Amino acid sequence: MLKDIHLEALKSIVGNENVYSDKAHLIAYSYDATRTRYEPEAVVFPRDENDISAILKYCNEHQVIITPRGAGSGFTGGALPANGGIILGMEKHMNRILEIDMENMVAVVQPGVINKDLQRAVEELGLFYPPDPASEEYSTLGGNVSENAGGMRAAKYGITKDYVMALRVVLPNGDIIRAGKRTIKDVAGYNIAGILIASEGTLGVLSEITLKLLPKPKFAKSYMGVFPTVEDAMNAVFKSLAAGANPVAMEFLDSLVVQALKEKLGIELPADAGALLIGDVDGNVAQEVEFQLEILEQSFIANGATGFRIADEKKDRDGLWYARRNASQSITIFGSKKLNEDISVPRSKLPVALEKIYAIGAKYGFKVPCFGHAGDGNIHVNVMVDGKDAKQLIDGHHAIEEIFQMVVDLGGTLSGEHGIGLSKAQFMNIAFNESERALFSAVKKAFDPNNILNPNKMGL
Amino acid sequence: MLKDIHLEALKSIVGNENVYSDKAHLIAYSYDATRTRYEPEAVVFPRDENDISAILKYCNEHQVIITPRGAGSGFTGGALPANGGIILGMEKHMNRILEIDMENMVAVVQPGVINKDLQRAVEELGLFYPPDPASEEYSTLGGNVSENAGGMRAAKYGITKDYVMALRVVLPNGDIIRAGKRTIKDVAGYNIAGILIASEGTLGVLSEITLKLLPKPKFAKSYMGVFPTVEDAMNAVFKSLAAGANPVAMEFLDSLVVQALKEKLGIELPADAGALLIGDVDGNVAQEVEFQLEILEQSFIANGATGFRIADEKKDRDGLWYARRNASQSITIFGSKKLNEDISVPRSKLPVALEKIYAIGAKYGFKVPCFGHAGDGNIHVNVMVDGKDAKQLIDGHHAIEEIFQMVVDLGGTLSGEHGIGLSKAQFMNIAFNESERALFSAVKKAFDPNNILNPNKMGL
Repeated sequence: MLKDIHLEALKSIVGNENVYSDKAHLIAYSYDATRTRYEPEAVVFPRDENDISAILKYCNEHQVIITPRGAGSGFTGGALPANGGIILGMEKHMNRILEIDMENMVAVVQPGVINKDLQRAVEELGLFYPPDPASEEYSTLGGNVSENAGGMRAAKYGITKDYVMALRVVLPNGDIIRAGKRTIKDVAGYNIAGILIASEGTLGVLSEITLKLLPKPKFAKSYMGVFPTVEDAMNAVFKSLAAGANPVAMEFLDSLVVQALKEKLGIELPADAGALLIGDVDGNVAQEVEFQLEILEQSFIANGATGFRIADEKKDRDGLWYARRNASQSITIFGSKKLNEDISVPRSKLPVALEKIYAIGAKYGFKVPCFGHAGDGNIHVNVMVDGKDAKQLIDGHHAIEEIFQMVVDLGGTLSGEHGIGLSKAQFMNIAFNESERALFSAVKKAFDPNNILNPNKMGL
Repeated sequence: MLKDIHLEALKSIVGNENVYSDKAHLIAYSYDATRTRYEPEAVVFPRDENDISAILKYCNEHQVIITPRGAGSGFTGGALPANGGIILGMEKHMNRILEIDMENMVAVVQPGVINKDLQRAVEELGLFYPPDPASEEYSTLGGNVSENAGGMRAAKYGITKDYVMALRVVLPNGDIIRAGKRTIKDVAGYNIAGILIASEGTLGVLSEITLKLLPKPKFAKSYMGVFPTVEDAMNAVFKSLAAGANPVAMEFLDSLVVQALKEKLGIELPADAGALLIGDVDGNVAQEVEFQLEILEQSFIANGATGFRIADEKKDRDGLWYARRNASQSITIFGSKKLNEDISVPRSKLPVALEKIYAIGAKYGFKVPCFGHAGDGNIHVNVMVDGKDAKQLIDGHHAIEEIFQMVVDLGGTLSGEHGIGLSKAQFMNIAFNESERALFSAVKKAFDPNNILNPNKMGL
């Protein structure tokens, strides 16, 4: 439990009604999407940037550990208070869209704003915020920036880092800094915003985020390519993109996912579907959409596709996407617990990566259904185990470790979207050499010399 | 002069033929585009990454200062050895395009490769490397990354940082690290590549750069908008973009530049041209090009344009661009020396920024012709003074300082493209508060604790 003197100090900053240390709150803030639990010693809700500053200054001086938290929807434990201390909850007060600047096509938000709320607000004005993590309906933009969230539209539109123009940040000592500008170009000083993105709340606390917006494209259609094998589909991914296609999304479902969708959910899919690619194309003019669809169809057929469907109307488009949207929940037929990782490889390595993933699964006797964002090389790999079987759990983790080593050997990364947090910390030495890890520690120390901010995450 | 023992040590690393301390070399490597001179104590040409590592390790241990240098074409002294020590010259050996990976649309280059050489090499293969600084014919990609170079195509295609996927870097202690991957998504570990971009050679020495490529758009046209006043043109910039236009480039010439082009170079321009906007639009389909031109024409006319020209054929397009390309050399009619800065503001602030720039110039009695990349808010501001008049030089610098303060007050930045280096170091306290500057110093120390790498640049 947090010492009373600390609780009182925090209450004097944010008011009694914004500091909680009752059991209900401690339990409520002990979770994230990893389903691992660590209870904090208190939960504090800052009302504004000055509160954040005062809280950090106090905690820094008194060695109280702080874990910033948005929606707690992360997959790697970034928002878990694994070392005790306080949760800094951003969703209660720091949740306003401060400005939508139509003239510069920029949005200014507080970190607790939910991704989809911003998407909806800007789309009403004819603008577009592309990053669309699967958690878009509940994850916060502060969390999105801290994890550098991706999503389905990354193939064409990139990821969160491509939209962050500027940040206001409270450093662990309580100092308030700005990083970046509401300008396209800015090369004055170190790119502090660049290193804060994906830093998982370990370097500073975001208090304000300035995001780039785009004009909303006027035309869009959806497509589905049907392939006899995973290898054909994976070849079609990088060959269609190298041929000049620029789809908004190119999502992949492997044969196990197709099987699960049919068996568990009764979804009708082509009988010959060994793998599917599903996605959208868009453009300012109808001809751009047709141009994209033509490249995709030609490349898909040239790489073995046995079918290529196009959907125009919303209902039909939703139909094509229905399979993809239900992939995650369908695969439980292969095991009660999924060990899911989000590896990313250079796109041309997708065929060999998938082949090796299945081989590693087979070696341990596991099904490993895969799906995800093939268009940007990012695949969600699900090692399905019996959650009640201790040996399977251990073997499952060995399989994951082998998969990570293989991915790194192919020039890929431990995580395309989810971050490292606690869950992947043990694998950092696979991906980074001693010098690289020493540099991470030096950077952490430069920002947070007393190590009060989300310590021991990211393998630090 | 560098101690003999250091010269011998460096020769033992890279060979006698790659270490020079003769006067001719020291003079040749004492310049950059600022025309300020600082002679190094020796010039060293590493042959490969291992040479760089051995040189840095030695220099770090013996407190020998290192200034990395590409083509020496920078505008702010980033490559000037202002504190003596050695120049690490990358253009002699580290100048190869290592790979153009068609399957993943990625190029891997050494830092000494000239920007335009990469552009040409990839365009032969139907691919496209967009960043096009005005120095593209001679500046190196290592320099481009270190300064985060922009260019004319930034309005649509962004700047160097948007194309850097991965770096190999030698840290000051000689350690070799990789930062980033040949993947679209990568959120494992801190974004070290992000902070190395624009770090002006102060944090590490780049040994290899992996750059994202795009498919080359198939259609393009050029346009020119003729405006009676600068204010009209500046309003047209942000209003056309907010209306959904996405031009490749939107370059601006003010009335002084138009006057200079007519008087000095005899270029024929519309009689009613108080300001011009010149640019390109492109697309995969012809209709996208027409779509862009329609938005531009409508927005330009709605904002006071008296003419809108379109050019399709290369000869006509070159004709439209001829004025822009000669802007810089024409303005010498207003003064023998130009104090040129590259401020950047949110686009909607362009009208007021230009108004204030002219007012500051008028206060001191200077003409301040302006031109540049209006489409991304980045304007080259030229305070024209008599280079032999000491008072004018002093007044000119006061004018620059006032301009910077005004730009920062408008939410803009000291530099859109050129960096800080030595030239703008004195203005860092205008743009950054004490906490921000302390953080820059802490970051520098985390990478380079002995301060051997390009010290005292960027106001550090």
